[in-house]
Amino acid sequence: MLRIVLIGAGNVGTHLGRRLQECGLPVWQVYSRRRERAQALARELQAQATDRWSEIQKNAELYILAVSDDAIAEVAGRLLDRLPADAFVVHTSGATPSTVLRDFRRHGVFYPLQTFSREHPVDFSTVPICVSAHQPEDEALLEELARQISGKTARINDRERAILHVAAVFVNNFANHCFQIGYEVAQRENLSFELLQPLIQETARKIVGQVPAEVQTGPAIRGDVETIQRHLDYLAATENPHRELYRLLSKSINPFLEV
Amino acid sequence: MLRIVLIGAGNVGTHLGRRLQECGLPVWQVYSRRRERAQALARELQAQATDRWSEIQKNAELYILAVSDDAIAEVAGRLLDRLPADAFVVHTSGATPSTVLRDFRRHGVFYPLQTFSREHPVDFSTVPICVSAHQPEDEALLEELARQISGKTARINDRERAILHVAAVFVNNFANHCFQIGYEVAQRENLSFELLQPLIQETARKIVGQVPAEVQTGPAIRGDVETIQRHLDYLAATENPHRELYRLLSKSINPFLEV
Repeated sequence: MLRIVLIGAGNVGTHLGRRLQECGLPVWQVYSRRRERAQALARELQAQATDRWSEIQKNAELYILAVSDDAIAEVAGRLLDRLPADAFVVHTSGATPSTVLRDFRRHGVFYPLQTFSREHPVDFSTVPICVSAHQPEDEALLEELARQISGKTARINDRERAILHVAAVFVNNFANHCFQIGYEVAQRENLSFELLQPLIQETARKIVGQVPAEVQTGPAIRGDVETIQRHLDYLAATENPHRELYRLLSKSINPFLEV
Repeated sequence: MLRIVLIGAGNVGTHLGRRLQECGLPVWQVYSRRRERAQALARELQAQATDRWSEIQKNAELYILAVSDDAIAEVAGRLLDRLPADAFVVHTSGATPSTVLRDFRRHGVFYPLQTFSREHPVDFSTVPICVSAHQPEDEALLEELARQISGKTARINDRERAILHVAAVFVNNFANHCFQIGYEVAQRENLSFELLQPLIQETARKIVGQVPAEVQTGPAIRGDVETIQRHLDYLAATENPHRELYRLLSKSINPFLEV
């Protein structure tokens, strides 16, 4: 049995811990600096809980850091003088190079490429797990672990993961922001956002197995300058702060547009 | 039985015609200027087919124009001197005011707020149908028709529909473009777009019943200038044309960002 210590009980830690348990890979110990959080998740996972660095188990086979990006370095520092020299430590961040853990001889990354929210259940079997490790046998271990919890795994090095993260910002953060602007536009006129929901769901569904550009529709790709101008006028008239964004996105879709 | 003439056998015409038939409201006649298209759809719908204006049935209860936005005015002109004065004519466009049909005493709009592609089946029962008509009894007729094919209907006037269309451009066209940029970023490094698909699906799923801003994540909303700068540098280094868009979208998410 692989003894796993999970550092962090936030969104990623919670969903990952649940999935590991589901797949017969129970977490041994959960750490969170917030005691109640550690206890709540540990109870659910039938694991030990702690909020003290001094209580971290020293002989686990794997330490998974599921903490926010800017806490990884600090947490690594805390662990460094407490764990044996051959402790295997990974983080779960898409944005952070593995080198932040380089003081551990055995280090790596176990990055589930998905957005997690506390309330929403996640179908982990479809979440791509991107793994890498400093040592080949550790990478094989991570890949095997990934295979046990997901149908999609990939060996992805630091450079590739950084690039995937740029892409993820576009398809997740920026697309969500487009949804928000649509929400605001409808909201201002007391039009229900519900009216736009089926369109949003279909927008995502439509690109499965497709190149998005091949299913691009709308005034920009059609070169329909008249509609675009009407929309820009409306955004100006309502003092919408996203007018310039509308223009730039349209020109980005269709560089030949003169708007 | 409502006798319906469907003008146009493209994406909207095809899906609408199928749905009408499914709901026991068979189309009487299909017109397309492309003869084979008219015949193919008519065969499927067990309707008459024609590619000649002179053959359009004159005593239908409803003429539905499912043609591209820029063809509506021309088609209306063709019909005007062929149909009786009390013919009821509607279009299906989100972007076009109903006044384009004002030469018909009885005119209106029957706008399914969804994106259609020929191959994809659409679950019409969830597609919001936005209706309006010049005369109240005609609006009631459209609303009743909409109710028969969808669980979501709304009376939406010209001004409201124009605004919904602005919102739709953001949530559909612009979000799809964000997916495309993500695709290109991954593609450039031979990273499979498949890795990003679950994230895209979850991005859409996550906002059901939510205000998108409340589930916004990523470096911009966190104020993580370091990551943003690294991403901008990467986009510059790879001569990605969407660098300025990344910057503007980030500032639009978080106006306090200095990037």
